[in-house]
Amino acid sequence: MMALKSFALIIAIFAVVTSISHASDPSPLQDFCVAINDTMAHVLVNGKFRKNPEHVAADDFFSSGLNIPGNTSNQLGFAVTGLNVNNFPGLNTLGISFARFDYAPYGLDPPHTNPRGSEILVVVEGMLYVGFVTSTSGPNMRNRLFTKILHPGDVFVFPVGLIHFQLNVGKEAKAVAFTAFSSQNPGYNIVANTLFGSHPPINDDILAKAFQVDEKIVDYIRSQFEWDNN
Amino acid sequence: MMALKSFALIIAIFAVVTSISHASDPSPLQDFCVAINDTMAHVLVNGKFRKNPEHVAADDFFSSGLNIPGNTSNQLGFAVTGLNVNNFPGLNTLGISFARFDYAPYGLDPPHTNPRGSEILVVVEGMLYVGFVTSTSGPNMRNRLFTKILHPGDVFVFPVGLIHFQLNVGKEAKAVAFTAFSSQNPGYNIVANTLFGSHPPINDDILAKAFQVDEKIVDYIRSQFEWDNN
Amino acid sequence: MMALKSFALIIAIFAVVTSISHASDPSPLQDFCVAINDTMAHVLVNGKFRKNPEHVAADDFFSSGLNIPGNTSNQLGFAVTGLNVNNFPGLNTLGISFARFDYAPYGLDPPHTNPRGSEILVVVEGMLYVGFVTSTSGPNMRNRLFTKILHPGDVFVFPVGLIHFQLNVGKEAKAVAFTAFSSQNPGYNIVANTLFGSHPPINDDILAKAFQVDEKIVDYIRSQFEWDNN
Amino acid sequence: MMALKSFALIIAIFAVVTSISHASDPSPLQDFCVAINDTMAHVLVNGKFRKNPEHVAADDFFSSGLNIPGNTSNQLGFAVTGLNVNNFPGLNTLGISFARFDYAPYGLDPPHTNPRGSEILVVVEGMLYVGFVTSTSGPNMRNRLFTKILHPGDVFVFPVGLIHFQLNVGKEAKAVAFTAFSSQNPGYNIVANTLFGSHPPINDDILAKAFQVDEKIVDYIRSQFEWDNN
Amino acid sequence: MMALKSFALIIAIFAVVTSISHASDPSPLQDFCVAINDTMAHVLVNGKFRKNPEHVAADDFFSSGLNIPGNTSNQLGFAVTGLNVNNFPGLNTLGISFARFDYAPYGLDPPHTNPRGSEILVVVEGMLYVGFVTSTSGPNMRNRLFTKILHPGDVFVFPVGLIHFQLNVGKEAKAVAFTAFSSQNPGYNIVANTLFGSHPPINDDILAKAFQVDEKIVDYIRSQFEWDNN
Amino acid sequence: MMALKSFALIIAIFAVVTSISHASDPSPLQDFCVAINDTMAHVLVNGKFRKNPEHVAADDFFSSGLNIPGNTSNQLGFAVTGLNVNNFPGLNTLGISFARFDYAPYGLDPPHTNPRGSEILVVVEGMLYVGFVTSTSGPNMRNRLFTKILHPGDVFVFPVGLIHFQLNVGKEAKAVAFTAFSSQNPGYNIVANTLFGSHPPINDDILAKAFQVDEKIVDYIRSQFEWDNN
Repeated sequence: MMALKSFALIIAIFAVVTSISHASDPSPLQDFCVAINDTMAHVLVNGKFRKNPEHVAADDFFSSGLNIPGNTSNQLGFAVTGLNVNNFPGLNTLGISFARFDYAPYGLDPPHTNPRGSEILVVVEGMLYVGFVTSTSGPNMRNRLFTKILHPGDVFVFPVGLIHFQLNVGKEAKAVAFTAFSSQNPGYNIVANTLFGSHPPINDDILAKAFQVDEKIVDYIRSQFEWDNN
Repeated sequence: MMALKSFALIIAIFAVVTSISHASDPSPLQDFCVAINDTMAHVLVNGKFRKNPEHVAADDFFSSGLNIPGNTSNQLGFAVTGLNVNNFPGLNTLGISFARFDYAPYGLDPPHTNPRGSEILVVVEGMLYVGFVTSTSGPNMRNRLFTKILHPGDVFVFPVGLIHFQLNVGKEAKAVAFTAFSSQNPGYNIVANTLFGSHPPINDDILAKAFQVDEKIVDYIRSQFEWDNN
Repeated sequence: MMALKSFALIIAIFAVVTSISHASDPSPLQDFCVAINDTMAHVLVNGKFRKNPEHVAADDFFSSGLNIPGNTSNQLGFAVTGLNVNNFPGLNTLGISFARFDYAPYGLDPPHTNPRGSEILVVVEGMLYVGFVTSTSGPNMRNRLFTKILHPGDVFVFPVGLIHFQLNVGKEAKAVAFTAFSSQNPGYNIVANTLFGSHPPINDDILAKAFQVDEKIVDYIRSQFEWDNN
Repeated sequence: MMALKSFALIIAIFAVVTSISHASDPSPLQDFCVAINDTMAHVLVNGKFRKNPEHVAADDFFSSGLNIPGNTSNQLGFAVTGLNVNNFPGLNTLGISFARFDYAPYGLDPPHTNPRGSEILVVVEGMLYVGFVTSTSGPNMRNRLFTKILHPGDVFVFPVGLIHFQLNVGKEAKAVAFTAFSSQNPGYNIVANTLFGSHPPINDDILAKAFQVDEKIVDYIRSQFEWDNN
Repeated sequence: MMALKSFALIIAIFAVVTSISHASDPSPLQDFCVAINDTMAHVLVNGKFRKNPEHVAADDFFSSGLNIPGNTSNQLGFAVTGLNVNNFPGLNTLGISFARFDYAPYGLDPPHTNPRGSEILVVVEGMLYVGFVTSTSGPNMRNRLFTKILHPGDVFVFPVGLIHFQLNVGKEAKAVAFTAFSSQNPGYNIVANTLFGSHPPINDDILAKAFQVDEKIVDYIRSQFEWDNN
Repeated sequence: MMALKSFALIIAIFAVVTSISHASDPSPLQDFCVAINDTMAHVLVNGKFRKNPEHVAADDFFSSGLNIPGNTSNQLGFAVTGLNVNNFPGLNTLGISFARFDYAPYGLDPPHTNPRGSEILVVVEGMLYVGFVTSTSGPNMRNRLFTKILHPGDVFVFPVGLIHFQLNVGKEAKAVAFTAFSSQNPGYNIVANTLFGSHPPINDDILAKAFQVDEKIVDYIRSQFEWDNN
């Protein structure tokens, strides 16, 4: 119960700080295009509205807090502190975003995709086991898994849209990584949450058929994400 | 056993006919750029090499067979007949591809992503229950599921990179759909196969933690995809 | 007279249902960006304004009616039922659109361009003679015509911006095709209407010189499109 | 007869010097990417192969001859001297090209499209009547013609893919213009030549139906372009 | 003093007429998207808002004045008359802009970058010495300078983002050039002004260290640009 | 003398490890497109050739060494350890690159541009004074300087193509930062080196006029970069 709450908590953190993203954003059409909050109820644009350049100041291109560890007291033992166009308005039109990842011992950034951005990761502390899986079909492709053990100073890149993960393989040590994304808003889709924690839930028979199991197992897995269905 | 083989079969079909794909491909730099098979062992390019335009003929822009139902005798009751740049060279640089989807009664196009393309689908025959799930995080987003029942002539669009599915809800009737993708090679990543059928397999502890289940359940699910691990 | 009216009618249909389109639209910057009607008199954007994501529902990604034949009782014996961002708001930023083409016996989709999108077409019923013409100049190019006879299940692709056409070669049978475009708004420019039916008309001497004929012939052709000049 | 030959001549000039082009070419991935001639018989790429940067010299970014009037002794009284990636290798990946247009008195750049580029034109000498036509369909669009008389120093822009033309309205004076295109290879498709001078010819019945005339008129117009069919 | 004022004047001219620009702007999503002035105080977009297409007229695609020499009575002996989306609304979304350059004898377009556009230049009158410098690092690169003497009718291309210049090498003759840019708003950054004339000034120690000189020389150079600091 | 050599050394390091950069690279057309060394003397492409996907391994997506401080014993007191497509082949087509910056006390990353990429920087250790300057012209722009003092965990973003710098303001402490770029090859152009250390040198009169100083000062500054001219 406790665990579920803390898991919900990390998702809540995601909801506030992340929504990270991807690769070939539309190019800038002026020196900068600092975003502003959406102040009109009925109209929005692709991306963000632009702040009056007369009012732009250095703080619009500035953010802070990546020296502070995220709270990893949750089921995954993982926390994202993300900087993207939603909380860092100067990134608008610049095609890049950034994040700090904290891992408790055995902490996991679970299998997920960034639908709109490639990701490059550097390990700052600890030891990570990382991997991504290629597409199901296509010439020379049959869901190949590429993995690597990373130490501090090591760098790995995850191609846009592919399912990937990182696991802290330190038994007792925490781990820290910095990551950058080739979009101002790459997106973050945890596969398990997407399938078993959506609102409303995906029908049992679809998940049972997809995973080739009976619906009881689907119900059981879903119950792990139930807090997320309310 | 039989079922596993037939499931493997559909994947084999995928491997031959699909590798469908997505959204903002590089633009053409001439009227057309018909692809050729990669004839040099050591060098390839992003996308495909170009056929000598003097040798290009109408057949390079032509393909056939979408009138023939795919073989849905597999566990999913589903078959893709896909046309993309890998088997339809005239699509190179044009930013579009096409497919026919066949569904047995209760046949399922399982939850998957197209990492490089949005998808638009029109129902030709039967009745489909379709849906996609939004990102895990970001303002106003918490894995919302959007679903719809579709009848012949109905059209639905799945945004690039998001997990989506279609289920034939006809008890006894088959279903048929045509789909197009905003890429010459959108990719096709079935979530279950990617997680439980990769080569080599993803470690049990990662999947157990991701789905919040114990490793026995992970092993059980993986066994359903075992044929795919060899 | 009757014919002219019915031809005007098909154009009116175009004006409502089409404005189909093309290839490397700006990429999405969030999961989706459903369009809304332009509610402010004085300002618009490139593409469309975005609906508040809180108000987005499955119906925004849905359209219907492609099971209903278009009315081909016009001079061309042809009707387009098009779905693009102007009448299908969920397509906004997704780089794709769709259409149904109906052809009476000998019905013609006349020579035209889609200025912003490549087009892929699958024949559902009947037999089509299709073709496109390459550029006037450039290495290895001298207005080459590529043509093909298509039967049900056959697929053909027309590269972005090139003049192309389809003719139903069935003497008594109608024909039906589905097409997709690599843009949310590919555009549809019928060459004859553009040259002889514009508002206001193009000067006689320009058309006479362009087609190497005298102005009487220009006037005669223009009279065929006169309804369109009012 | 003479006229036809000279008209063929201007097209031949096109074939050598033009193949001008358009708007959102793929971006450069290094400081420059000077093109080289295609030296391998069987493989080409989208765009051009790249010269070894060690061998690149200032002359690769240089061209000359735009001070020399083109030969306008042809039926149209018009000549293009175009610089694009096919004859100016330094333009490769830079998304721009250039041309000089010469007009005899009443000379005409006939209705045409640039399928891959917008065009901006400045009048250097003489007086031009210029125009373009909008799409056939779409909200607020019904083949609207926009025209303007231009004098030296005046500038006009033609949006990508739309049919446009320029006519020298000077009775006895020649005219000269410089134009730039938003592509390294925008393409140049003269409508009349594409429809009536293609190889092989487009069927009479298609053109007759498209222009709402009988086939005799089609045959007559085609005869004006016959030299171009051989 | 006089000279400083006239130099300030040319910059003032820049501020009004230029802000020229670059290469892979977002593509159009309709036939055209004429810009309007930003009429709302608090919201802007990437690029420009769009004028109601019903109100668009030929004049939106038209500009004039490139027959009038710019005023070169300033320290550089140089003047830009630029047409970009800020003063030519029809260019919006079309990925191109244009300018006239006037040079007094020995007039200089000083070393600068266009951060968002490649530039192509044709000499109309006089003799120019032009050049650009490649990147500081990278394989095969060590700040190579490419230069060329240009005469009327000669054309040169400057790749996006690289530092370049033109000098009128005529002792007594003025020079004139036309240039086009692969963006609707390429930007114009004079290196000397950016470093020594910014508001507020860049710290002395940074410039002293960057140029490997003592701060007195920095102060002296800055004094030349002092008018620009107020 | 010693200093000059060590300055040359840092440039040599640049030449090997960097060539960092940029903004809207062409999108991938398959899951990944690992680069290979250019093995053919005469042909290259925009970007890189692609490794046979059968031979691709996890190490292609991996690099190391960002835990090792760069050697800052040079005139600038600054070192870049850069990872881009030239030394990290897995980055090809992914639109992102990465670097570690080391600063000695008062070490300076001198005013420079990245012509093809925006840059996001996080301070890991020490205290940096950072800034960038906007364009010389355009509405609301007159070379505005935006600056900020950064501490560990602080983040700053530099828009593509604009001149920017970082200075370690710690009197005795070194500083370390990680940076990411929105391109696989953003480019790195130090302004001082580009102007005063190019090969061959830029003419004295151009630099004297650009900086409004006499040629003796130009010669003096150039002498500081003389080692770089050989």
